[in-house]
Amino acid sequence: MLSKALIKQIRSLQIKKFRDSEQLFVVEGPKMLAELVSSPQWKIQMVYSTDELLVEEICPLAPFSIISERELEQISGLSAPHKVLATVHYEAEKGDKMNIFSGFHILLDKIQDPGNLGTIIRIADWFGVDGLICSTESVDFYNPKVMQASMGSVFRIQIQYVNISNFLEGNSNTSKLPVYAAMLEGENLYGCSLPKDGILLMGNESKGVDTLLNKFITNKLHIPAGKSIGPKAESLNVAIATAIICSEWARSK
Amino acid sequence: MLSKALIKQIRSLQIKKFRDSEQLFVVEGPKMLAELVSSPQWKIQMVYSTDELLVEEICPLAPFSIISERELEQISGLSAPHKVLATVHYEAEKGDKMNIFSGFHILLDKIQDPGNLGTIIRIADWFGVDGLICSTESVDFYNPKVMQASMGSVFRIQIQYVNISNFLEGNSNTSKLPVYAAMLEGENLYGCSLPKDGILLMGNESKGVDTLLNKFITNKLHIPAGKSIGPKAESLNVAIATAIICSEWARSK
Repeated sequence: MLSKALIKQIRSLQIKKFRDSEQLFVVEGPKMLAELVSSPQWKIQMVYSTDELLVEEICPLAPFSIISERELEQISGLSAPHKVLATVHYEAEKGDKMNIFSGFHILLDKIQDPGNLGTIIRIADWFGVDGLICSTESVDFYNPKVMQASMGSVFRIQIQYVNISNFLEGNSNTSKLPVYAAMLEGENLYGCSLPKDGILLMGNESKGVDTLLNKFITNKLHIPAGKSIGPKAESLNVAIATAIICSEWARSK
Repeated sequence: MLSKALIKQIRSLQIKKFRDSEQLFVVEGPKMLAELVSSPQWKIQMVYSTDELLVEEICPLAPFSIISERELEQISGLSAPHKVLATVHYEAEKGDKMNIFSGFHILLDKIQDPGNLGTIIRIADWFGVDGLICSTESVDFYNPKVMQASMGSVFRIQIQYVNISNFLEGNSNTSKLPVYAAMLEGENLYGCSLPKDGILLMGNESKGVDTLLNKFITNKLHIPAGKSIGPKAESLNVAIATAIICSEWARSK
């Protein structure tokens, strides 16, 4: 049986402040747990499940505790919890990774919506993008909604948080990868050929790319809108725009 | 002041059953209301707002009621309601539109997630797709979460609900537009040239396109995944895949 204090502690991991202080995050559901286990870098602290056979099948080496449906509901962040929840250790990042020299990387400026970040992680994984870098003001990827939206891709791709100005300053001084940004004004995406090595900078959901970063952008891209009579959609969702540009990058290869 | 009965009635419009019986739906926030007003076909029943000037600016001809912040919270479906909520009339569809003869149309089979449908509506609006058709089992577009995710595009594009088998049967007998379906096995999307006139069939979030519809599909499309060492993303989100294919259609034009 779980103590009230433990239930409270596990539930608190839904909130960033408590994840950071405990250096733990939560993974829910058999599919997500199986994805986590398939990546060797993660260390499970404890598995809580209503189904012992399931635990033996997915993560036979992890410490576990069999709990009731009622207890699972108490510790879960989902409206319909599904058989298993695990608490997993993580280490705070050691510092900014300041230079990249090759590959195609997505760089996110202040992405706020966990669903958008999770979806972008899944896109990056699908297209085999070489890295995903987020400004420190972006939502953290241990957020349970990011995890769910990523459908497990979060456990497979490398995600770093950086001071975005310093990172782009370093790039423009040293590695000089081209920096592409999606903007309403810019070159027609379908007329560009995207390079194997480069950085795709995507901006905040409502404000776009911070104007302070303009000086680092080498190529502005625009996804052309279709014909329309009268008013039409003003913009595309940031995850949708990222997908379209990554698809153009994939077809250029 | 709003009566308890009226508060209850407005709140009930969050649920499809009550929307259908009242033939009313809810629009929230100044931006969404302005989008609605810019499309002539909608008839506002009543505007509830905390700000009279705002109402005069956005919809000076609509009947309105000035309410308190507290009352707005009581009738709103949002966690952070924003100044205004309107109830709007709609008419139940008169019946299936059985044949289309030209243009590029998105056809959705049993889309369940309101966020996905709203995002697809926004994509269709952006790319100037000629129509959006949903199977009757799909989430209804008067759902408040569909409205929000569409960012107002829901008021601008034509959306129809049909019996999908009958619709595709009619198409294969009469108008014979090619039917493209996104599937894990299929022709490489980047090698296809998508036609000006056609139907793009997208399947349910977890089950894909219903196998009963296979016989109607003329072209299977596949979005190629990138390189990867070890396991990788199994699929793309349905809205993301729709966006990528619509972008290819736009670049083919």
